[in-house]
Amino acid sequence: MIRLACFGAGRIGRVHALNAAAQPGVILTCLADPVASPEREALAAQTGASITDPDSIFADERIDGIIIASSTDSHAELLLRAAETGKAVFCEKPISLDMALTQEVTRRIEASGIPCMLGFQRRYDCSFRALRDRIASGVSGPLEQVVMFSRDPAPPPRSYVETSGGMFRDSSIHDVDMARFLLDEPIASVYAAGSCLISPEIGAAGDVDSVMITLVSASGRQAQIIACRRGPMGYDQRLEALCANEVLSVGNQPQSTLSITSAEGMLSAPPENYFIERFAQAYRDEMAAFVALIRDGTPPLAGIRDGYEAQRLVEAALQSAKTGQVVRLEGGA
Amino acid sequence: MIRLACFGAGRIGRVHALNAAAQPGVILTCLADPVASPEREALAAQTGASITDPDSIFADERIDGIIIASSTDSHAELLLRAAETGKAVFCEKPISLDMALTQEVTRRIEASGIPCMLGFQRRYDCSFRALRDRIASGVSGPLEQVVMFSRDPAPPPRSYVETSGGMFRDSSIHDVDMARFLLDEPIASVYAAGSCLISPEIGAAGDVDSVMITLVSASGRQAQIIACRRGPMGYDQRLEALCANEVLSVGNQPQSTLSITSAEGMLSAPPENYFIERFAQAYRDEMAAFVALIRDGTPPLAGIRDGYEAQRLVEAALQSAKTGQVVRLEGGA
Amino acid sequence: MIRLACFGAGRIGRVHALNAAAQPGVILTCLADPVASPEREALAAQTGASITDPDSIFADERIDGIIIASSTDSHAELLLRAAETGKAVFCEKPISLDMALTQEVTRRIEASGIPCMLGFQRRYDCSFRALRDRIASGVSGPLEQVVMFSRDPAPPPRSYVETSGGMFRDSSIHDVDMARFLLDEPIASVYAAGSCLISPEIGAAGDVDSVMITLVSASGRQAQIIACRRGPMGYDQRLEALCANEVLSVGNQPQSTLSITSAEGMLSAPPENYFIERFAQAYRDEMAAFVALIRDGTPPLAGIRDGYEAQRLVEAALQSAKTGQVVRLEGGA
Amino acid sequence: MIRLACFGAGRIGRVHALNAAAQPGVILTCLADPVASPEREALAAQTGASITDPDSIFADERIDGIIIASSTDSHAELLLRAAETGKAVFCEKPISLDMALTQEVTRRIEASGIPCMLGFQRRYDCSFRALRDRIASGVSGPLEQVVMFSRDPAPPPRSYVETSGGMFRDSSIHDVDMARFLLDEPIASVYAAGSCLISPEIGAAGDVDSVMITLVSASGRQAQIIACRRGPMGYDQRLEALCANEVLSVGNQPQSTLSITSAEGMLSAPPENYFIERFAQAYRDEMAAFVALIRDGTPPLAGIRDGYEAQRLVEAALQSAKTGQVVRLEGGA
Repeated sequence: MIRLACFGAGRIGRVHALNAAAQPGVILTCLADPVASPEREALAAQTGASITDPDSIFADERIDGIIIASSTDSHAELLLRAAETGKAVFCEKPISLDMALTQEVTRRIEASGIPCMLGFQRRYDCSFRALRDRIASGVSGPLEQVVMFSRDPAPPPRSYVETSGGMFRDSSIHDVDMARFLLDEPIASVYAAGSCLISPEIGAAGDVDSVMITLVSASGRQAQIIACRRGPMGYDQRLEALCANEVLSVGNQPQSTLSITSAEGMLSAPPENYFIERFAQAYRDEMAAFVALIRDGTPPLAGIRDGYEAQRLVEAALQSAKTGQVVRLEGGA
Repeated sequence: MIRLACFGAGRIGRVHALNAAAQPGVILTCLADPVASPEREALAAQTGASITDPDSIFADERIDGIIIASSTDSHAELLLRAAETGKAVFCEKPISLDMALTQEVTRRIEASGIPCMLGFQRRYDCSFRALRDRIASGVSGPLEQVVMFSRDPAPPPRSYVETSGGMFRDSSIHDVDMARFLLDEPIASVYAAGSCLISPEIGAAGDVDSVMITLVSASGRQAQIIACRRGPMGYDQRLEALCANEVLSVGNQPQSTLSITSAEGMLSAPPENYFIERFAQAYRDEMAAFVALIRDGTPPLAGIRDGYEAQRLVEAALQSAKTGQVVRLEGGA
Repeated sequence: MIRLACFGAGRIGRVHALNAAAQPGVILTCLADPVASPEREALAAQTGASITDPDSIFADERIDGIIIASSTDSHAELLLRAAETGKAVFCEKPISLDMALTQEVTRRIEASGIPCMLGFQRRYDCSFRALRDRIASGVSGPLEQVVMFSRDPAPPPRSYVETSGGMFRDSSIHDVDMARFLLDEPIASVYAAGSCLISPEIGAAGDVDSVMITLVSASGRQAQIIACRRGPMGYDQRLEALCANEVLSVGNQPQSTLSITSAEGMLSAPPENYFIERFAQAYRDEMAAFVALIRDGTPPLAGIRDGYEAQRLVEAALQSAKTGQVVRLEGGA
Repeated sequence: MIRLACFGAGRIGRVHALNAAAQPGVILTCLADPVASPEREALAAQTGASITDPDSIFADERIDGIIIASSTDSHAELLLRAAETGKAVFCEKPISLDMALTQEVTRRIEASGIPCMLGFQRRYDCSFRALRDRIASGVSGPLEQVVMFSRDPAPPPRSYVETSGGMFRDSSIHDVDMARFLLDEPIASVYAAGSCLISPEIGAAGDVDSVMITLVSASGRQAQIIACRRGPMGYDQRLEALCANEVLSVGNQPQSTLSITSAEGMLSAPPENYFIERFAQAYRDEMAAFVALIRDGTPPLAGIRDGYEAQRLVEAALQSAKTGQVVRLEGGA
């Protein structure tokens, strides 16, 4: 029996805690969240976990692994404590908004040798994964260009923009990670055009809401991220991989298979609302992968180094958008 | 140089006359229509044809072939005169609304040996034809079931219903012809359910507006026609052929490739308006096939016998809908 | 807390038992299956249910409801015992393959007043349900024609054909139920064409494998079922509802949103494998509806009478296919 | 009656000459091409035009307008002679590969006041045009981002690469023109990543074959061009316009509406082969627009200034790809 503890009882903590508790052979023993709330109580009740504090979790030798789904500013310290206490760790991105600290944490996690996995759930989505597997199989021929459309249903409140590090660090990190996942070689340069077109509030917070990011790999392969803080159709996550022999596309997942045809044309159902619904299967498989990492040492699809490199890329994109210049990455990312 | 004459300057006469005039190596010399109209004059001017009468056309030995696109009640006599004068003939369906006369005309056309082709243009549509060619190639495996959706944009006026012979004879004839084209073996039984659900005017004229026709072939293969005098999306012509190895579908042809996606879903463009637009390519290729029939004797996709058998089938469907009983066809149709 | 017992630990019993155990406020206390098997043990372990026998279940007053997912020939007796002991019942179709017994059981269940629900899960599928809700909202205008495509991935073994009552009783019952669900008025006549085109084994068992069934309602509305024991694309469950203002279609649910485009065209993912995967959401919601029926008396989407009428329709279809005649239903079904 | 002359009897000259000859009220009187060939003779025969030389055409006062579809290096001189002789002119892009000459020709054409239209046929495609009209109607809300996919079926031969000015000048010019057409405000900066990934021959000629171009307008709106000299699916021309209220997409136009579904998924037909087929309607409407320009002064969708600005943009893109730096455009383009 594997024993896990979860930090964070918010939206994403809830997803991970429920998925962990549902894994065969797994017990979610503890839940830690500094804020008492009905949601925290409900989650504890549903998962059978007891509510406790970080010290108790790290002191409990029966706990095999921890899930970090708490606030961004707590990630680095929890990662370091996991390394010190030798617990396996699953951590939501980012490692830290401070790049020097991110680098240090990455180094120490790697030195510790603990099993560690980063929360890039999109890598576990069956459609994205099938796309990558097909490229890996060689049948598609060499990958040449990748294009991603990445849009949230609605812009976040100003407070979130200010604490999350902004659009590149908070949102585009998933897209650059997917670019790395697919290109499978270091990114040599980054260019980002960023504008504030939809939300004056976001502009007032010093951030952008509409971006295009061009990544070029060492061998000249290209990735493009088309992103916006608001998608007119709701949550919009599409990807197209242009290979020598074929074009692979991951589309949005409609809410139903109902279509309605009238004199205006054929209307198909809108996409799943938001990431919780769209990536439900990915979150389940991601947690199963964490359990497999602990149980058998099966390497996860994303490790601490992937978190660090993705952060380097979004920092470069941010710098490019601010300066209007192309940013080259020493040694690639 | 091949010389053609066209009977009828109405909607479908115009299509055929223009296509004939545009064929390389073809001159449309004459146009005959008993009703003087601006449309007749315009069509003559556009095609370079002179307006004349039937007697002159049949007397003119330089005319190689005639196009019969005149009113239904004139078809039989024009066909017989073509047989007598040895002219090639392209005739719109039906041969006649009188089945005895239809049989007699068919017999005499066949006896005359003149090149003769029936106007089942759908057989020349590139999509329907690609479907049939694929079945013929054997890769799809045996055809087992065919389903057609066949709907007009709006019900016809009562006057048309009364002179055209009604929904089965006027409209479903194209569908049963397509069933024959694909099943490629005699039809043994016909069952038709017909209701008047959308137009009380059609009901008052003694006709139906919504039908389902089941055709079963000698070997037990099945075809289904789902038809209505009104399609909410406009002109709706779809077909699905269920074979052992794969399902082949011909969809509607959208007016453009523009789609519009919002929170309501993705809206693609509505289908081409009506048969003139939808089957523009088919009408062009059909006329080219008539020219090839005259020039080289290339067999057309539909001959006089196909017109006769399709009429037998719609008569059987009409009888079935009236009696509520299944109709068996002696020797198949 | 609601206590349930489940009869049957086979493929469908497993689905219902797991869904029941996952309902908040529900305990699956017992599991009854006459055949000891590793699957039965595993299901008991996963759900926390104890394995027991029917007598103990009906004698246990703390058990609120039973789930009948056992072999077809046991349904009638279990339904009658539920009626006698006053337990709520969820029963897989059919009630019985014997129509006289089916009628008697229906009468006694209705007389008993126990909460009773039939397992027509397709009514709970979010796409089919959205279609029906849209029709019910009035925005689509009157429903005129319904067409269903219903195909299994592969034909069943001969043994199954012989014990299940054949294609109409075993498979088409779901389709005629959907026709009833949507047409929402009695069916007046049934015509079925049935052929054995794909499996000589099925023919040898006296059954057919390819059918087209035409249902006509009292007011002349029409439903068509196009069914086959084998779908080249796998499990194929589509429906089109032709209404006055719009056409509503439920398509297959692809296994992923990946598409692959090459010189051959665009290839989208195949549909979900089979009913367990395709209707996973429907089965969950169906079990939630059974719980709501017990807890609050919320009427289910399908009751015992729906099971009886659907059976009357498939018996009529079978008779029609055998005689080649149209069958009229006294009072409608 | 309007009299036109056509320069060039090659692939695109043939398209324009045939479309010109088919316009009501238009006579194509002359065809000029320095190279005698069977194609030139055939085109003259089909259109009824006489083959002649440029001097005769410009000397003939009855000729109202000229079509320039000759080799790129002849465009500038023919434009200037049209300006001098007061003939209306329709000119294929580019004006010249020499930017100084392009600027001079543009100035002199504008000073002359002759009716002049540039051959950006995509503006006349019904799908692209419907997209722009919808944006112009205001219903889509402000346009924020545009993404284009632009791929040829196969890379051109090295000789073509060397004389055409390379990928940006030859091919991307259509895409930047479409960006200008839709954004409808000056482009302030251009960034282009260009790689040679598919054809070493193209690399040897000093050109690239795979590019991503980012255009940012004065107000921060963004356009992205994803282009390649080879499309695995054939000719690939898609566009997505992301507006505040909805996303508008123009897809490829399939060769037929046939789809084939098997256990591998649903395969729809591949897109139209190449630009001649894909833009057949656009070329027809473009020529009709040239006639309307001569006859009524109706402004065309693209004038000489649009040709000049599009060339400025592709020069900037070329410079960006060479230097790896973002290029800012004085006053916008």
